[in-house]
Amino acid sequence: MAKRLIPSLNRVLIEKIVPPSKTNSGILLPEKTTKLNSGKVVAVGPGARDRNGNFIPVSVKEGDVVLLPEYGGTEVKLADKEYHLFRDDDILGILHE
Amino acid sequence: MAKRLIPSLNRVLIEKIVPPSKTNSGILLPEKTTKLNSGKVVAVGPGARDRNGNFIPVSVKEGDVVLLPEYGGTEVKLADKEYHLFRDDDILGILHE
Amino acid sequence: MAKRLIPSLNRVLIEKIVPPSKTNSGILLPEKTTKLNSGKVVAVGPGARDRNGNFIPVSVKEGDVVLLPEYGGTEVKLADKEYHLFRDDDILGILHE
Amino acid sequence: MAKRLIPSLNRVLIEKIVPPSKTNSGILLPEKTTKLNSGKVVAVGPGARDRNGNFIPVSVKEGDVVLLPEYGGTEVKLADKEYHLFRDDDILGILHE
Amino acid sequence: MAKRLIPSLNRVLIEKIVPPSKTNSGILLPEKTTKLNSGKVVAVGPGARDRNGNFIPVSVKEGDVVLLPEYGGTEVKLADKEYHLFRDDDILGILHE
Amino acid sequence: MAKRLIPSLNRVLIEKIVPPSKTNSGILLPEKTTKLNSGKVVAVGPGARDRNGNFIPVSVKEGDVVLLPEYGGTEVKLADKEYHLFRDDDILGILHE
Amino acid sequence: MAKRLIPSLNRVLIEKIVPPSKTNSGILLPEKTTKLNSGKVVAVGPGARDRNGNFIPVSVKEGDVVLLPEYGGTEVKLADKEYHLFRDDDILGILHE
Repeated sequence: MAKRLIPSLNRVLIEKIVPPSKTNSGILLPEKTTKLNSGKVVAVGPGARDRNGNFIPVSVKEGDVVLLPEYGGTEVKLADKEYHLFRDDDILGILHE
Repeated sequence: MAKRLIPSLNRVLIEKIVPPSKTNSGILLPEKTTKLNSGKVVAVGPGARDRNGNFIPVSVKEGDVVLLPEYGGTEVKLADKEYHLFRDDDILGILHE
Repeated sequence: MAKRLIPSLNRVLIEKIVPPSKTNSGILLPEKTTKLNSGKVVAVGPGARDRNGNFIPVSVKEGDVVLLPEYGGTEVKLADKEYHLFRDDDILGILHE
Repeated sequence: MAKRLIPSLNRVLIEKIVPPSKTNSGILLPEKTTKLNSGKVVAVGPGARDRNGNFIPVSVKEGDVVLLPEYGGTEVKLADKEYHLFRDDDILGILHE
Repeated sequence: MAKRLIPSLNRVLIEKIVPPSKTNSGILLPEKTTKLNSGKVVAVGPGARDRNGNFIPVSVKEGDVVLLPEYGGTEVKLADKEYHLFRDDDILGILHE
Repeated sequence: MAKRLIPSLNRVLIEKIVPPSKTNSGILLPEKTTKLNSGKVVAVGPGARDRNGNFIPVSVKEGDVVLLPEYGGTEVKLADKEYHLFRDDDILGILHE
Repeated sequence: MAKRLIPSLNRVLIEKIVPPSKTNSGILLPEKTTKLNSGKVVAVGPGARDRNGNFIPVSVKEGDVVLLPEYGGTEVKLADKEYHLFRDDDILGILHE
């Protein structure tokens, strides 16, 4: 029984990216190097409401890789997989390679 | 004497979903697996007021299955059944199967 | 010397409903069953002011039976009877039978 | 040298009503009965300012008998008589006989 | 080198009125009687800004005798004389004889 | 390598005025007399933004001698000279001789 | 795998300027002299939203050298280089030589 979540308002559902702890060639990476706190956007809400009741669209979209704050967010488990919900405002930025 | 409650403003009346603690075939589930905090929307208020006194409709509707925050909400007992009142903003999202 | 109170702004004057502690047939009810915190609206204020100074009417009316929060409200004694003043926003909902 | 005070903004000058502690026929009243915290409006300010700088008139007028919160207000002594200043919002309602 | 201060925004420069501690005929007044906390307006700022950046004029003018709150205000010494700066909102009212 | 700072938003760059601790004729002044906390405006920001994103100009200009609050402000060292940054709102007033 | 970050809303990505701790001629500078807390703007967000949902552009641009507050900002590591994210409002000013 898989569940899909449509976040409410300006909430964003994130699947955190667990960085590899060793390189492809098998060298163990020091812990500091691997610590970038990023995640993939899985689903976004319709946005917060402005003073007139209209939605302000969230600034990220499904598939974006985003930089996350070290603290905050709400842990959610859907279909045995762990996700996090963040407010759009709390996302620090979008990462591009 | 059954009572029906029309929540005020942007309040939402929720009947929490108690997850099965064992599978149909009788296997006991570990506690962690069963912990998704969800509920069914039983009734919704007319919405909060914007600056001009108009109602901003709530973002969920009767029958929706919603994801709830771990804390918060007000316990209410109506006709011997336990419900919870949540503010529309505090509902984390809508669950679809 | 009976006194009548017109609540100010969005305040609502409530007469709390004391639930019967035994049934008509005389059976004592356990304390938990009787604990629904409700009251009858006796008088309502003209409403809070919006940004332009206009009144936003309160969402309940005289005679409504309302669900009250467990805490809050101001106790008032008028003509030897006890009442409570609540802000319109703090009323949880309207009860219908 | 009697002084007259014009309250500023939405402040209201109140002369508290000290309830009689015994009836006309001389019977001492129990303390609880006499405790209604009321006062007479002596002077009102022009009102608070809205976002455009216009005054929002206060909701009580000179001569009104009002219900006061148990705490709050600023004690003021004018011409040897004690008064209290309350913000218009803090007045609980207007009492009518 | 005398200095003149033009208060900024909605600040008001006040010279506190020190009440006489004995009457003209030389009778010492009990401390309570003399305690009315009043002052004379020496200078006023252009007012606070509303949402559109316009000034909201302060509600007192030079020469007004005002009632002051017991606490608050900023002590300022100009040309060896002591003054106090208060925000327009904190002035309790204007005194007339 | 001298640096010039353009303050952001409604910040104001101030060079504090250190009052002489003795008179021209060499008499030492008691500490209290010299304590007026003033400064000279060196640079001003473009102003804070109003609700529509427009700048609200700051209320002081380069060269003004201003009265400063006893606490607050951010110390900044530019080209070996010490300055302070204050928000326009925190400046108490403009001093004229 | 180099990563580029587009900051969200009114966030600004800063590369802090580490001041030289000795002069070109090799003289060690005392610690105080070198302490100006500045940085170079590497990337800026689209700006915060106003009440109508429009972006208010940030007040600095890529390449600007800015004065930073002593505390605050979020440390971010991108491609092994250390950066800081600041809100546009928290940047104290722009430095010019």
